[in-house]
Amino acid sequence: MKTFHIPVPDSSILEAIQHKIDFKTKPVGALGQLEKLALRISLIQQTLNPSLQKPHLVVFAGDHGAAQEGISKYPPEVTYQMVMNFVQGGAAINVFCRQHNITLEVVDAGVNGTFEKNLPIIHNKIPNTFGTNNYLKEPAMSIKEGQKSIDRGAALIQKIFENGCNIIGFGEMGIGNTSSASLIMSKICKLPLSECVGRGTGLDDQALKTKLQVLQKAQDLHRKLDTPLKVLTAFGGFEIAQMVGAMLQATELGMIVLVDGFIATSAYLIAHQIEPNISHYAVFCHQSDESGHKAMLDFLGANALLKLDLRLGEGSGCALAYPIIQSAVNFMNEMASFESAGVSNV
Amino acid sequence: MKTFHIPVPDSSILEAIQHKIDFKTKPVGALGQLEKLALRISLIQQTLNPSLQKPHLVVFAGDHGAAQEGISKYPPEVTYQMVMNFVQGGAAINVFCRQHNITLEVVDAGVNGTFEKNLPIIHNKIPNTFGTNNYLKEPAMSIKEGQKSIDRGAALIQKIFENGCNIIGFGEMGIGNTSSASLIMSKICKLPLSECVGRGTGLDDQALKTKLQVLQKAQDLHRKLDTPLKVLTAFGGFEIAQMVGAMLQATELGMIVLVDGFIATSAYLIAHQIEPNISHYAVFCHQSDESGHKAMLDFLGANALLKLDLRLGEGSGCALAYPIIQSAVNFMNEMASFESAGVSNV
Repeated sequence: MKTFHIPVPDSSILEAIQHKIDFKTKPVGALGQLEKLALRISLIQQTLNPSLQKPHLVVFAGDHGAAQEGISKYPPEVTYQMVMNFVQGGAAINVFCRQHNITLEVVDAGVNGTFEKNLPIIHNKIPNTFGTNNYLKEPAMSIKEGQKSIDRGAALIQKIFENGCNIIGFGEMGIGNTSSASLIMSKICKLPLSECVGRGTGLDDQALKTKLQVLQKAQDLHRKLDTPLKVLTAFGGFEIAQMVGAMLQATELGMIVLVDGFIATSAYLIAHQIEPNISHYAVFCHQSDESGHKAMLDFLGANALLKLDLRLGEGSGCALAYPIIQSAVNFMNEMASFESAGVSNV
Repeated sequence: MKTFHIPVPDSSILEAIQHKIDFKTKPVGALGQLEKLALRISLIQQTLNPSLQKPHLVVFAGDHGAAQEGISKYPPEVTYQMVMNFVQGGAAINVFCRQHNITLEVVDAGVNGTFEKNLPIIHNKIPNTFGTNNYLKEPAMSIKEGQKSIDRGAALIQKIFENGCNIIGFGEMGIGNTSSASLIMSKICKLPLSECVGRGTGLDDQALKTKLQVLQKAQDLHRKLDTPLKVLTAFGGFEIAQMVGAMLQATELGMIVLVDGFIATSAYLIAHQIEPNISHYAVFCHQSDESGHKAMLDFLGANALLKLDLRLGEGSGCALAYPIIQSAVNFMNEMASFESAGVSNV
């Protein structure tokens, strides 16, 4: 597996950035989180005139061996069907990406099905992996598969970066993957499973109870997980693993990384364990309605930009937050200063 | 003064709207507040295919006789200077409106200054009103001036509506106007002034104390305010009064009204007292960092879409929330249904 080297942005430019923000025609601090965003993005890009170039959203899809253990409301074939829906442009993430001119890429990271070669899909799965193993019986994937998945996710980003993109969001599709995220969260955040398990796509009380019992069995089965890679490979899925590699690679390249909801944040938890410097480049876009996401964000000391009660995945929170991030960049570049506008400052 | 008749949208279409939302390719409810927005907008427009047409943002500017009583960090001339900044395109609201193709209109509702006739400003003030009276000595305006201001705000909207606009946001500029908003809030929401007064553009602890003392005097002076119009005219300002008329007129015409932060919500409080049906058409865009705004929203039983710690005014929260509202409309029109996409539903 590739070793990632994520640099800490040089802070010598910080004062100049803050000065530019403070002398815009507004009270100091009055643009709130937009000012913090502008500061962080300017720092990442080491400039007083930041810009967002060729935004991309990459949706990783994968299936889960445990999906038929009663952990999801939807049958596993919905993963494949939703990938086809992405391809046809009919999913929520298609709508939001079109609205904001974000290039959407769909990645088969391990879907239980074979897509025609000529479809606009990035065929990125390890040959012959049609979803993970059932973690109630064995690890979701081997350590080697986990390493390969991270490398495949990373390689993908290298190409997008070379194409001129400097801001990228990640989404996922995989029936059963809130369960993987909960298991990862419980281990990394050291929280009891009951605080990590939620209703996913809409389980009722009884089904939620079943899900918790199933995941407790999985956790009991996989006790010795002393590295982030072991946590990842024990519970999967391939879409999460590729996203880990993608996040690490994007930040190594100095791109701004948009983190979506519960499942994307579970990938971030793993990536953050591997390379804590990732935090300098991450923007948390939306606090999911999935219970547990807030505790994940708290663990990371992070606040999400939006809280719109979404629980959809697909990277939807990233796409919806994108115009806010664009606004932060725009005010830096376009607003007048007190001096240039002839407005009295205090 | 005009009497406003705001109809309650016919709810017979509600079931059909909800059905369309529920059969989009996503778990029921998974788009959270976007689904609620889509439902409300479809209901207002009485259609399953809502649309946002020619969005406008109208910034009302006015000066305050009490502005030099130590209630604001900035000198009163900043109102005039900021109007000129709007005209030149250098303020935050210019940047955000440009980003989202929102037409920005700037209204002189009572600024202490005279703008050249050929500037792109709507010259809408009552002749010879260069700001309100000082409410520490007398009512900010006469009842007649209040009525005229409401009518002038309303007339303005009629024209914008006839031009094809169906969604409109309102902003304000007026040094000292968080104080008017606090005084209005205290009266309408029946809350002690201490819960209504905040730092505005950035007062420190000592200045905040002074502001509270000044406003307490104003409140003590104006005790008999038994109608919303009397509350409005006692404390001003002209920009708030014109916004009241504009909000009422826009909703009478069935437009979606975007409500910004603390001061815009104080205008809404008055409008809502005059015609409670306004609530069917209002979208609260941003919960301000100005302490007191949350209590205003609680009083109204309202939740704002965004919470980005802004405290700028100008309608900035409306412009930043606009793409989210557009997303709600877009998913209604563009997302596939389970049936059309061939995705298994449960």
